[in-house]
Amino acid sequence: MLVRLNEDQATKILAEKRVGRLGCVVDGGPYVVPINYYYEDGCIYSHSLPGTKISALRTNRRGCLQVDEISSDLNWRSVLAYGSFEELVAAPEKAAVLNRLLSDCPRLTPVESAIAEDGLSQQVIAYRLRVDRISGLAEQ
Amino acid sequence: MLVRLNEDQATKILAEKRVGRLGCVVDGGPYVVPINYYYEDGCIYSHSLPGTKISALRTNRRGCLQVDEISSDLNWRSVLAYGSFEELVAAPEKAAVLNRLLSDCPRLTPVESAIAEDGLSQQVIAYRLRVDRISGLAEQ
Repeated sequence: MLVRLNEDQATKILAEKRVGRLGCVVDGGPYVVPINYYYEDGCIYSHSLPGTKISALRTNRRGCLQVDEISSDLNWRSVLAYGSFEELVAAPEKAAVLNRLLSDCPRLTPVESAIAEDGLSQQVIAYRLRVDRISGLAEQ
Repeated sequence: MLVRLNEDQATKILAEKRVGRLGCVVDGGPYVVPINYYYEDGCIYSHSLPGTKISALRTNRRGCLQVDEISSDLNWRSVLAYGSFEELVAAPEKAAVLNRLLSDCPRLTPVESAIAEDGLSQQVIAYRLRVDRISGLAEQ
């Protein structure tokens, strides 16, 4: 049976997971990429090297993160959190976010681990989506 | 090591998988949902009940499908296929697509199975994204 999750149920799934699919808008069309993230106090935190998604989010700040738990086609939950992009530029805040991402995701790629260890690298971007709407569906 | 997949490699992954995350644009912002699909002759085929994604794609035909294979954080591949939405309205074509989706995805939800068995239901929408660009990245 398909049911709608309430805000608490959807937020719980968002907070538990560490991988989601980030959607943003590029030249008026959609763009979706998998990201590592963590959720805290109403915000989704992540990091990136410069590229398509960062250029897109600097232009159109609206983003969404889709997160799911799929046990089977008959038993799944999917959450969609919408928010606005905020780049973290203060060095201490940026370092804290990168370190938290590394400790939560110890098996990040070597590139990501190198970035996190050298948390103040100029190239790496730390950012958050300030969530203003969240919805979820479950088949159970 | 992060490497870019060529078009053949990316298309092979798209053709193998049956679940992806569809991105589209709603009111100028992004929207992402998991879908069942199959890929054939340059098109992604799927179905849906009326709702947000169908309304969105009827308004802005650009969509993308993100598909991935994640063995570990050190071993993953992700593909992004972009295309334009085309609704399938001819009854034989619509029935063929719904039957193929059912045979490829035998464990669809009961709702989806009921839809596919009653393939000519007026409510269910069959559609394709005609892919015009595909890209992929792998960490290996």
